[in-house]
Amino acid sequence: MEKEIIELFRRHLRLQGDLPLGDDAGALRLRDGWLVATNDMLVRKTDVPGVMTPEQVGFKAVTMNVSDVAAMGARPVGFLFSLGVPRDIGMDYLEGVAKGIGKALEHYGVPVLSADTNEADDLVIDGIALGRTRRLLTRSGARPGDLVCVTGDIGRALAGLLAWKHELDVPAGARRALYEKLLEPRARVKEGIELSELANAAIDISDGLSKELHLLAEMSGVRIDIEAQELPIRDEVRAVGEILGLNPIEIALASGEEFELVFTLPEEKLRCLGVRCTVIGRVLKGTGVYITTDEKRQEMPVLGWEHLNRRVKGTYREMFR
Amino acid sequence: MEKEIIELFRRHLRLQGDLPLGDDAGALRLRDGWLVATNDMLVRKTDVPGVMTPEQVGFKAVTMNVSDVAAMGARPVGFLFSLGVPRDIGMDYLEGVAKGIGKALEHYGVPVLSADTNEADDLVIDGIALGRTRRLLTRSGARPGDLVCVTGDIGRALAGLLAWKHELDVPAGARRALYEKLLEPRARVKEGIELSELANAAIDISDGLSKELHLLAEMSGVRIDIEAQELPIRDEVRAVGEILGLNPIEIALASGEEFELVFTLPEEKLRCLGVRCTVIGRVLKGTGVYITTDEKRQEMPVLGWEHLNRRVKGTYREMFR
Repeated sequence: MEKEIIELFRRHLRLQGDLPLGDDAGALRLRDGWLVATNDMLVRKTDVPGVMTPEQVGFKAVTMNVSDVAAMGARPVGFLFSLGVPRDIGMDYLEGVAKGIGKALEHYGVPVLSADTNEADDLVIDGIALGRTRRLLTRSGARPGDLVCVTGDIGRALAGLLAWKHELDVPAGARRALYEKLLEPRARVKEGIELSELANAAIDISDGLSKELHLLAEMSGVRIDIEAQELPIRDEVRAVGEILGLNPIEIALASGEEFELVFTLPEEKLRCLGVRCTVIGRVLKGTGVYITTDEKRQEMPVLGWEHLNRRVKGTYREMFR
Repeated sequence: MEKEIIELFRRHLRLQGDLPLGDDAGALRLRDGWLVATNDMLVRKTDVPGVMTPEQVGFKAVTMNVSDVAAMGARPVGFLFSLGVPRDIGMDYLEGVAKGIGKALEHYGVPVLSADTNEADDLVIDGIALGRTRRLLTRSGARPGDLVCVTGDIGRALAGLLAWKHELDVPAGARRALYEKLLEPRARVKEGIELSELANAAIDISDGLSKELHLLAEMSGVRIDIEAQELPIRDEVRAVGEILGLNPIEIALASGEEFELVFTLPEEKLRCLGVRCTVIGRVLKGTGVYITTDEKRQEMPVLGWEHLNRRVKGTYREMFR
């Protein structure tokens, strides 16, 4: 349904900014660079796992928007938000959300410019972030020959969600590592700013690495080849995969809201880069996304966490029957 | 409850923009002027009268934000929105909203920079508008000696709502005039831009003239005196007042979402002003807002439409019993 709605709106929104819709953020030219702007709505019922504290909810509402600004290579300069508040919500919950938003703004050094509150049926936080940059980093700039890199590690957000949903018995240390990424992910702001001068293209991981790579390849008009064994997957993710009978690579590819940055850049620029990252593949001429596992190259499926979760349910039931 | 929530959030949001929270929009300094940013959430259940078409809903979601930009004296340069969409909404309804947003963006000449959609319990449209101006028009700039002016006419939005809610039997021409303002209000963009060079302070009428005047007086640290007989109230509003036994001046003071601009400026600048407006009063030293009716001066009550509507119900029932 979401795709249909987006299509519907695109047909009626002819007037667009200085960058077509479809990137991490929209953009307007300023005299000395670009203003980027992005918004992302968080709905408690559908977007917030029950294990998340109100403070973590508030922090994440900021992070998800700041991350989109970072993916454009921009420095976040302002945050706005609208709250839809159900009549029966506790003031304690709201205070937690407020604290979380406040902490996040201090963490990222971003001022709040405007806020609005309304009565609504469910808790809704619509966050908006503004950013500025001299050079814009888009999803369409990947060039054949570029390396494909990713910051941090991937998979922990989904592995944490699965561990929580299926009440897995994982050691406390591992749970902490997984929940850190599920509940308190951080946007890669410094990295995005550093990348803006060096990278050719970037995107943040909101919907899972596989979806983001397909977007990058499609919007840049290139082919992307990924080496499965290079993916930065931590042992805690592998452990959850083992318990649930899931391939950890699939978990890593499907894991959303990681807020790591995926970017491409010419090989010779890698030396100049002060960003800690892992090279996971290469950009080629052509189309599509491929992944090499055990010397077998195959098309990378577009994996979503819902899809994986459905499969888990079957496996899980079998395992514990 | 709204006030409590706002208080709660203010306590936790220490990092603010280059203008403190509490104006029509937030603002950031650019090299050559100001960037203003504002957001306003529309929730169907609480904000949309049943008589409004989906296209009018979409248009209004843009207008209410563009109006805040205009009140800062800024030219709107970008629009963003997030949609919360209930599962059971008709695609026809959504298409109407999309059309309305598209038409509004063309009407105001504003590009869409970013859009997001999510599942939610009720239809929610959170709109965000960005604007630019060389000189910022705030709520705190009114100076003793200034004239107080308002664009257009006031009262039709509330009179229209009352006529619809209470199924009043008003002539077609009058209903058209009332519904025009209730269902298809327009933001005063040209006027705002023109005012930015001349006026000392401005605010748009979102919550009713009386509330806006109290905000202006309070934030500017001045007293405001209004002449009731100067208020630009059309005959259609007076007619509704007569049927319902309400004072048309009260209707005009309580009528929200008019999107007219209230502004103050030095008397000698009135001649230079290309904006059609009505002088309704004067700024003085002191505090508070006063209104003179029939040579009697009294404090102006803070009137909201809910308050007036409650009173109407009684009157109305008596009239038609």
